[in-house]
Amino acid sequence: MSLEGRLSINLATTRGSWGFAEAVDGCLRHGITAIAPWRDQVEAIGLKEAARIVETNKLQVTGLCRGGMFPAEDKAGFQANIDDNKRAIDEAVALNADCLVLVVGGLPGSSKNMPEARKQVADGIAAILPYARENKMPLAIEPLHPMYAADRACVNTLSQALDLCVELGEGVGVAVDVYHVWWDPELATQIARAGQMGAILAHHICDWLVPTADLLLDRGMMGDGVIDLPEIRRMVEAAGFHGAQEVEIFSKENWWKKPGDEVLATSVERFHTVC
Amino acid sequence: MSLEGRLSINLATTRGSWGFAEAVDGCLRHGITAIAPWRDQVEAIGLKEAARIVETNKLQVTGLCRGGMFPAEDKAGFQANIDDNKRAIDEAVALNADCLVLVVGGLPGSSKNMPEARKQVADGIAAILPYARENKMPLAIEPLHPMYAADRACVNTLSQALDLCVELGEGVGVAVDVYHVWWDPELATQIARAGQMGAILAHHICDWLVPTADLLLDRGMMGDGVIDLPEIRRMVEAAGFHGAQEVEIFSKENWWKKPGDEVLATSVERFHTVC
Repeated sequence: MSLEGRLSINLATTRGSWGFAEAVDGCLRHGITAIAPWRDQVEAIGLKEAARIVETNKLQVTGLCRGGMFPAEDKAGFQANIDDNKRAIDEAVALNADCLVLVVGGLPGSSKNMPEARKQVADGIAAILPYARENKMPLAIEPLHPMYAADRACVNTLSQALDLCVELGEGVGVAVDVYHVWWDPELATQIARAGQMGAILAHHICDWLVPTADLLLDRGMMGDGVIDLPEIRRMVEAAGFHGAQEVEIFSKENWWKKPGDEVLATSVERFHTVC
Repeated sequence: MSLEGRLSINLATTRGSWGFAEAVDGCLRHGITAIAPWRDQVEAIGLKEAARIVETNKLQVTGLCRGGMFPAEDKAGFQANIDDNKRAIDEAVALNADCLVLVVGGLPGSSKNMPEARKQVADGIAAILPYARENKMPLAIEPLHPMYAADRACVNTLSQALDLCVELGEGVGVAVDVYHVWWDPELATQIARAGQMGAILAHHICDWLVPTADLLLDRGMMGDGVIDLPEIRRMVEAAGFHGAQEVEIFSKENWWKKPGDEVLATSVERFHTVC
């Protein structure tokens, strides 16, 4: 059975071995025709060349990582973040991405004021939303695990992200990454709610390792951890999302040290046997 | 101004230097008359001797750490956990503790079934609750940060813990530990709810470091991280809890390597200047 439209590789997963072009070649060797690149990877090869590779190979781009990082210590910083997010929208459009993933940002500078950071996030998305709508680029708010609340994203639950979607209106949805949401007692109800809102834009997979050695760079391959992946997939599909599952693994000491082809072969095998 | 009834030291904080008796002596040297010991520390000196030290020095015991760890792979394991929790209640009574803190446990064995683990937790607390009530020992469910959902506690938000309290009835409340709950978008509303329920039994403090080097053993001293401690204290006091703030710092590479007297002196100073 073809992997087309079913499995996507977030290019962070093969960051240890490959840049954009090598990763695309690798994916194609393994029958994978969907990718989600990071902006630095696109910049390294050049946006035009990246877009050409996508088009030539008829790749699906399940998301561009990432916009967001809105909160700033002052108005100039906030405006610079808005401007950067508009450039990210341009890049996502050029790559014909399904969505621009937003990792919204945490506490700016030495602030301890979470409500203020969260207000800046809402204001920031509101500020770029007209531009995103004009360009028909859906914005996918990715709630991040609460352990990233301080430094990466102060949107930490699906419930909170969906409240933001309601507040902001058309053109904003969510990326459901199992690593960030698997623990949530409200997981089933909030995924169902997201489905009713038509808000699920992406579904990222990996696994939660026990023990986890590093807060950021020790994600597991599907099947190596404790996440009930088939159950979450069932929830997501019951909620009406039938897009690709996107493998996103940050793993400095393990998968990033292995050859890209081994990482992809394992991803494909686990996709079939575990997910 | 006396620290009596205002500042408590969880004896995990001075675990690097001291056992039970040395820690009590240290606390008294620093004007601290409230402690929260761990069961292994009590066992090491003997329950009778620990109780004698508490009584002789008129110490307040703001909590005994800890009961919980309910989920098991089979009935025998579950029953063993129930029995152990009843012993913990006996010990808490002997020490005249304000509450028995429950770290409820995570996924048993190789299970990935969070709903089942959570059901076992509810069943486990229900099973010990009559005994706790007979012995007039309040049970304090401590929601743990979601990063501990797999291996330590599958109760991960105040909302979830309070729902359990409602389900279980009289004799169960919550321990509000800033480290576990500071990130929660529902923090203010759930602390207020806990207050209306009269459910706040303990208030633990420390700080969230950025970066955090270890998921378990890299908690910060108050003021060294990003948690808005005065704001959370204000919420807790507005909710009607005016008991001691209990310093609980697991810090393998920093505070556990410093002399206990330095740890306590810093805790007292930060309590006055930061909390």
